[in-house]
Amino acid sequence: MADARVLVAGASGFTGALAAELVWRHPRLELAAITSRADVGTPLRSLYPRYRVPLALEELDIARIEDAVDAAIVAYPHGAAAPLVAELRGLGIQVVDLSADFRLRDLPTYERWYGPHGDPDLLEGAVYGLPELHRERIRRAELVANPGCYPTAALLALAPLAAAGLIADVAISAASGVSGAGRGSDHHFVSVAENFSPYGVGSHRHAPEIAQELAGLGATPRATFVPHLLPIDQGLLATCFVTPARDVGDEELRALYAERYTGEPFVELADAPPGVRDVRDSNLCRVHVATDAGSGRVLAFAAIDNLWKGAAGQAVQNLNLMLGLEETEGLL
Amino acid sequence: MADARVLVAGASGFTGALAAELVWRHPRLELAAITSRADVGTPLRSLYPRYRVPLALEELDIARIEDAVDAAIVAYPHGAAAPLVAELRGLGIQVVDLSADFRLRDLPTYERWYGPHGDPDLLEGAVYGLPELHRERIRRAELVANPGCYPTAALLALAPLAAAGLIADVAISAASGVSGAGRGSDHHFVSVAENFSPYGVGSHRHAPEIAQELAGLGATPRATFVPHLLPIDQGLLATCFVTPARDVGDEELRALYAERYTGEPFVELADAPPGVRDVRDSNLCRVHVATDAGSGRVLAFAAIDNLWKGAAGQAVQNLNLMLGLEETEGLL
Amino acid sequence: MADARVLVAGASGFTGALAAELVWRHPRLELAAITSRADVGTPLRSLYPRYRVPLALEELDIARIEDAVDAAIVAYPHGAAAPLVAELRGLGIQVVDLSADFRLRDLPTYERWYGPHGDPDLLEGAVYGLPELHRERIRRAELVANPGCYPTAALLALAPLAAAGLIADVAISAASGVSGAGRGSDHHFVSVAENFSPYGVGSHRHAPEIAQELAGLGATPRATFVPHLLPIDQGLLATCFVTPARDVGDEELRALYAERYTGEPFVELADAPPGVRDVRDSNLCRVHVATDAGSGRVLAFAAIDNLWKGAAGQAVQNLNLMLGLEETEGLL
Amino acid sequence: MADARVLVAGASGFTGALAAELVWRHPRLELAAITSRADVGTPLRSLYPRYRVPLALEELDIARIEDAVDAAIVAYPHGAAAPLVAELRGLGIQVVDLSADFRLRDLPTYERWYGPHGDPDLLEGAVYGLPELHRERIRRAELVANPGCYPTAALLALAPLAAAGLIADVAISAASGVSGAGRGSDHHFVSVAENFSPYGVGSHRHAPEIAQELAGLGATPRATFVPHLLPIDQGLLATCFVTPARDVGDEELRALYAERYTGEPFVELADAPPGVRDVRDSNLCRVHVATDAGSGRVLAFAAIDNLWKGAAGQAVQNLNLMLGLEETEGLL
Repeated sequence: MADARVLVAGASGFTGALAAELVWRHPRLELAAITSRADVGTPLRSLYPRYRVPLALEELDIARIEDAVDAAIVAYPHGAAAPLVAELRGLGIQVVDLSADFRLRDLPTYERWYGPHGDPDLLEGAVYGLPELHRERIRRAELVANPGCYPTAALLALAPLAAAGLIADVAISAASGVSGAGRGSDHHFVSVAENFSPYGVGSHRHAPEIAQELAGLGATPRATFVPHLLPIDQGLLATCFVTPARDVGDEELRALYAERYTGEPFVELADAPPGVRDVRDSNLCRVHVATDAGSGRVLAFAAIDNLWKGAAGQAVQNLNLMLGLEETEGLL
Repeated sequence: MADARVLVAGASGFTGALAAELVWRHPRLELAAITSRADVGTPLRSLYPRYRVPLALEELDIARIEDAVDAAIVAYPHGAAAPLVAELRGLGIQVVDLSADFRLRDLPTYERWYGPHGDPDLLEGAVYGLPELHRERIRRAELVANPGCYPTAALLALAPLAAAGLIADVAISAASGVSGAGRGSDHHFVSVAENFSPYGVGSHRHAPEIAQELAGLGATPRATFVPHLLPIDQGLLATCFVTPARDVGDEELRALYAERYTGEPFVELADAPPGVRDVRDSNLCRVHVATDAGSGRVLAFAAIDNLWKGAAGQAVQNLNLMLGLEETEGLL
Repeated sequence: MADARVLVAGASGFTGALAAELVWRHPRLELAAITSRADVGTPLRSLYPRYRVPLALEELDIARIEDAVDAAIVAYPHGAAAPLVAELRGLGIQVVDLSADFRLRDLPTYERWYGPHGDPDLLEGAVYGLPELHRERIRRAELVANPGCYPTAALLALAPLAAAGLIADVAISAASGVSGAGRGSDHHFVSVAENFSPYGVGSHRHAPEIAQELAGLGATPRATFVPHLLPIDQGLLATCFVTPARDVGDEELRALYAERYTGEPFVELADAPPGVRDVRDSNLCRVHVATDAGSGRVLAFAAIDNLWKGAAGQAVQNLNLMLGLEETEGLL
Repeated sequence: MADARVLVAGASGFTGALAAELVWRHPRLELAAITSRADVGTPLRSLYPRYRVPLALEELDIARIEDAVDAAIVAYPHGAAAPLVAELRGLGIQVVDLSADFRLRDLPTYERWYGPHGDPDLLEGAVYGLPELHRERIRRAELVANPGCYPTAALLALAPLAAAGLIADVAISAASGVSGAGRGSDHHFVSVAENFSPYGVGSHRHAPEIAQELAGLGATPRATFVPHLLPIDQGLLATCFVTPARDVGDEELRALYAERYTGEPFVELADAPPGVRDVRDSNLCRVHVATDAGSGRVLAFAAIDNLWKGAAGQAVQNLNLMLGLEETEGLL
């Protein structure tokens, strides 16, 4: 018998569909239902032939869910997620929310980037779902805010430096595959193929999320974040240029990263800069750190699959923790 | 009758072949011969079906060249170029050299990165072939060192800031299509497709070239340069994170860039960040500059086609200047 | 002074925009206006940064066109084109129509595939715009129906065999880049990348067009046509499996193709099977023919750029012929 | 305890490496060793970071293998495989061979395409490893010749028609991703990207393999096979144009395919033509069949991942059968 019956709400999009697939394959979870506001009645496999989920998308019927669901992964757009999360929490259902609605603890900051918040009261109890930073709090959480894909990579690249008080200043140049923008995004093949371009320059919603979590580690550096769109479907790389607070050598850096990440099931320290292909279709984050001889800067890199560790894979990792299961269950 | 008879030496590689094609199409130049150390006897179109050059690759016979050639574009590997350039110069032939052999004015710096120099005496007379910085000197030059593709983009992104004394510190995150690594590079399709990865981390040959030219503009900032490999054939983007020496606003930046680049035939100022697809198969460099509100940094971007403005197109632009032709001739 | 003032109607799509660009660059034509039903007021370069056209899209105002336009390229969807073409013809304007509206001479066949026809009376005077088959009639035409991209490649691969009475039976397996489906098509990057799939199986609109023109050459073989979608932006290949009406050898085949295509400015006979990359961004069609030893079949291949020889390039080629200009003007 | 200790010989190539990975992940097998003629001493993960195998490549030492290995997957080039297979069989080790050396039962045919055979005596006992055709014989085999990737797709598309005596004539147009050509192939990214081209036209080594197996099903049609190279890493599609021996309708076709494939764990019948992305990174073959109204032809399609069902996945499927394990073990 399964340890929990799981609803995936918003399963027609890229991340929701992968979340459904991962729950379906999970040896300890039961996929109770997949719901969607679009494509109701459509078998998920018609939209995503690679997946094995044999269910069809249905309309969300909260009345039927109460006794049939123990936990939910919500993959709704920002703003639309909060009301649904509130309803599910009202029924006592544990929730991992993939939207930004519960990531930012500071309400004015949220409202500046996303507009009015659907349920500010829930903010306080929500835990930021980056297990490598908040594992114990996630274990006890009823509502987990799954991090954005860019913050996941940037924070895993920078956390050891931040916690050691070593970041005086940081510039983050990141690049993501197209699936990161969602199925609803208007990325025609012809405009993306053979292209590479920055976007959201000067202000991107993920910057405050990164700042908040660095601050939680004690670091409040001057920070700049520039994302780029890659002509691939999956994969995300964060390249971080850090001005260290004091001189630091490669050996100290390696020790620092090893100390933090040894034993982490989904973080791999690499001897060479990682490529996004190295982690495709996996929940791994590959991290590499090195000094830049000429400038004294520290270069920190992290590669993830934006749909896995950057979204649905991490959601299941969080769910495992919340349900008291093995953290890696269903993700290897 | 043509204004000059041009030899392209090393025409079997990506940049040499495009240089041959551009000379062939050029209304004022005659493509006298294309030579190569490999593939002798092979029609260029067998290797590059898209090109129109009807010549076959031949072995270089310096004796036959003396009276048959007025100018040469040399596309040999670093180190191998210098001896050939010396021979050609000995015959009074004007040369644009695509290798790094004459880019660095400081011999020890050259030797640190590339090994012993084949003809240091020629260094002094060589002009760094970035027309937007050295147009008048290029007009009078007999030997022009064509810039690297990364320096071309980075310098065009940064020159207005550098000349205005505004760069206190800069981190350059750049990405290039695979053709930038040359036909001889070992980039199997399967290792590059769906990938994106940094390389040459901590030290890349192009860093001293960028530093030299920024210094020529009066700027000696702390600088860090990290290149990445893109899963596309052509295209290069430089994303520059500049810490300005003083506060600067978007209006001042726009004025600064307009002042420097208005009238430049191959630099386009764009209102939005450029994509590499925008300049594919053209000699254009698209530049965008903006402030980053939160950090006070200046973000400067430049997109080029690494084979055109980053190599063969710029070589022809230089040749036009050296020969007293219209700078844009054969390049529009 | 230009030889003709040309309107491009429907210039916001992929083929209309390239047609506008080609007219703009054309030494003998003047681009009088570019119109569109969407994006009115938008400079074309905002949509297509690679292009040089300095005009903005405007609404079509037929009253203003009468005295300002000599010829038009119409890039409207099937069905929507006919009424506009009728209006333009009513003003005495020469038209190249990129839609299917005037390609099929048989009205019932048209209506079976495309629905009611907007102006059947014009059908009779329309000439099918494949210059390699109908050059002289195109020269005298007032209305030219530009062929579909698949028929262009298939017909150029098969014409010599068809005219020689050699096709008893043919299966055409073709593949096109995504731009062939138009800017309005719903081809999200993620669904196309790393994919390759047949579509329109069992019945495709281009089949009757191919049959009509083969019949015009005297061939009425049993024919099957299956298109596939390639994960690239531009490029189209037709692979034709021909059962010959009698035994035929490679030498005879080569002679047959040489006879038909020698002197054709845009058809290249290749010794090896062509790749679509060979003809990218050009108006060329590369053709290769060979026997299949084991089966006695004849294999005929043709590669084109679907936006050029498959659409906008061929439109300009036709316009050149209609206006008495050099056929290759503006296309090399 | 594992049911068998498995050697993967030739594990540095694409298919050998995936075979090693699949054995490593397999719940009932133990990966005893991975050997290679190149890259000895290199951890497999240095070459293939996505894989989990923690072993390094070693030189093959037949003396040490005798008591340490129960079964082997051999991924050597054609010609080089036979001598090794003979040695392994001499030790009583069960072998799945990925080369062509034991696929063709007719020695002269083999020698015509591949040269002298290394061990013709073994031919007789070898079983062609397409489980959907030869499951029971594979269960009893000591040496299985794993099919080529093209034959696997073509035969699964055609088998129901062949067995029903319905194929009078067939043309197979197939396309494969670049990994199908092997790690040693010279496919530079730049020559493959944005390209699509036929190769091996007029004669391809896979044609006799297809003919042999169709004959085994009672079909000896006139057959033509043309492969194409796709600009993707993994994926293979076979598009088959069949002239049926008699009239046949869609309903009969569906019944025929359902009868043959219902219960097959790795063959999926699809309502629509399959894309290669549908089966990426899986051992599935998606098959679709339909009539072509106009011509009376039958169109049969099969999509596989060339590295999985086309090579390493099928090798493990065969090994499962030979070892008496569940056929799908380790492959879902």
